[in-house]
Amino acid sequence: MSDLPKSVKINEEGPREGFQIEKGPIATRRKIELIDALSTTGLHQIQCVSFVNPKNVPGMADAEEVTRGFTKRPGVKYTCLWLNDKGFLRAAKFKDRYDLTAKISLTASEKFLKRNQNRTLKENLEAQTGMIRLFKEAGVPIDGGSIMAAFGCNFEGDIPVSRILEQIAQMHDLAAEHDIKIKWVSLADTMAWATPASIKRVVGAVRQKYPRLDLNLHLHDTRGMGIACAYAGLEMGVASYDAAVAGLGGCPFAAHKSAAGNVCTEDLVFMCEEMGLATGVDTERLIEVAMLAEDIVGHPLPGSVKGGGSLKLMRARIRAAKSA
Amino acid sequence: MSDLPKSVKINEEGPREGFQIEKGPIATRRKIELIDALSTTGLHQIQCVSFVNPKNVPGMADAEEVTRGFTKRPGVKYTCLWLNDKGFLRAAKFKDRYDLTAKISLTASEKFLKRNQNRTLKENLEAQTGMIRLFKEAGVPIDGGSIMAAFGCNFEGDIPVSRILEQIAQMHDLAAEHDIKIKWVSLADTMAWATPASIKRVVGAVRQKYPRLDLNLHLHDTRGMGIACAYAGLEMGVASYDAAVAGLGGCPFAAHKSAAGNVCTEDLVFMCEEMGLATGVDTERLIEVAMLAEDIVGHPLPGSVKGGGSLKLMRARIRAAKSA
Repeated sequence: MSDLPKSVKINEEGPREGFQIEKGPIATRRKIELIDALSTTGLHQIQCVSFVNPKNVPGMADAEEVTRGFTKRPGVKYTCLWLNDKGFLRAAKFKDRYDLTAKISLTASEKFLKRNQNRTLKENLEAQTGMIRLFKEAGVPIDGGSIMAAFGCNFEGDIPVSRILEQIAQMHDLAAEHDIKIKWVSLADTMAWATPASIKRVVGAVRQKYPRLDLNLHLHDTRGMGIACAYAGLEMGVASYDAAVAGLGGCPFAAHKSAAGNVCTEDLVFMCEEMGLATGVDTERLIEVAMLAEDIVGHPLPGSVKGGGSLKLMRARIRAAKSA
Repeated sequence: MSDLPKSVKINEEGPREGFQIEKGPIATRRKIELIDALSTTGLHQIQCVSFVNPKNVPGMADAEEVTRGFTKRPGVKYTCLWLNDKGFLRAAKFKDRYDLTAKISLTASEKFLKRNQNRTLKENLEAQTGMIRLFKEAGVPIDGGSIMAAFGCNFEGDIPVSRILEQIAQMHDLAAEHDIKIKWVSLADTMAWATPASIKRVVGAVRQKYPRLDLNLHLHDTRGMGIACAYAGLEMGVASYDAAVAGLGGCPFAAHKSAAGNVCTEDLVFMCEEMGLATGVDTERLIEVAMLAEDIVGHPLPGSVKGGGSLKLMRARIRAAKSA
């Protein structure tokens, strides 16, 4: 099956996914600088911060300051992340800064859920009911859902496709109960278990059962499969991807040894644009921002195109040389 | 089209492709150590050295010493590279050490050929006649061909598919004249212009015209497309790939910024094995050898699985934890 979309939507998560993991303190003004730079690249959506417990994630203690600091650019959707009610209530104060549209958050692996949030699958499903009520009280719409560890888990192993279908059905049940509509589902390869083959298998099964559901892929590059998995997703018609500029999010102690970050935005943009799929992003400008990201974190980041260079520029040079 | 092969043949080029580019002097004994370590991983073919002018490639000045030094392991095919008659005559002294089976070497970009070998396409074709005579005189069989810059060129730009088909036809003409048979053709993405889409386009056109020809892909990861391109090749039924352990061959001055080396062997093996395609390679052992390669060059190398770890090991740990 090959069903390439004509255009691809990229959700930039570098500022959130990247800075969250960095050990060294990163100045608030530099985080803002990156968000503002990203907004000049043509990216339509930027996730800026996560509202999480600063004791657990010290790098996100300045989430409010960053939120107030960036310059909103027309046409760009700014988003933030929360993991629980406390985080959401912090985020909800910034309706003027963020698109707060919410989602139902499930996790395919019970063992991972237990370790991360100390909940069973059932308890997490119940917790979602509470979150939906909270979103509604705050006047925040809910239009999608996400499934973490959808392709495998370091504590539970391989995840059967049936689990994913079951969790999407649970989302629809929740939606029906609360009179909301799930328009899209994000499948997250949280621990980098996916291969292009498993992307095709899982996405294929979901599309067969839910042909009208929009899908998003959240891919990590820990085992070097990120771009290949994105390509497999594109071939299955998936038109929305999370990504992080320069591959931000890699382990700061072994950034170049183990690119554990999200799939790299400029590498993904390069692939899409070279294959004729429009992203709306200016690759050259994005490469400049990837270099800025490296400057900000102060260590090499894993993305490749920022080193290899884009072909658009090279073609322009070749044309110029021919006409000279 | 999806036509995954059941098994995949990997031609390890790390010792040749990798050390050739390293600036710092690498001790001969350490090159031999890597070759001997690679031979314990299950890899069936290892390219050990290139017989090139030591003035141009000082890192290969010890090619003869390396050749004499490694321990031949039964079942492993050891190969070497040459670029011209002088190199071949040096290689031809080692019939006992190498499988010297030769190929016809074409280049899709005339501009690249001019810069590299100061020849036109026509002159290069004529030069191949001379090489075929030399191979025959030395009693070395010829069974394939290669096309460099098959997917694009930094000096000429995009390469039309028709050029590739034309060059394969030229190989067949040469073969007919000299009573040899071209059983396989290697398409090299020398300057990393390929995307999964162009791999499918070019391989598709070649397969349509020459369905019985075996294909090999030589991919570089300069723009992060290596593994995705290999996946596209697999989907098109290509069952043979060149690769370099740890992604050896990256620029020594910016190894982690620009992974200019071949597609990384252990990342490719990981993808194939996880997708159920047999490579014959022990992923865990190969990861150890990738770490040895890093130790030998003394700087980080771009491969991901050596940092991220294999899933086979993780599954074994999960099983052990369950049964404990």
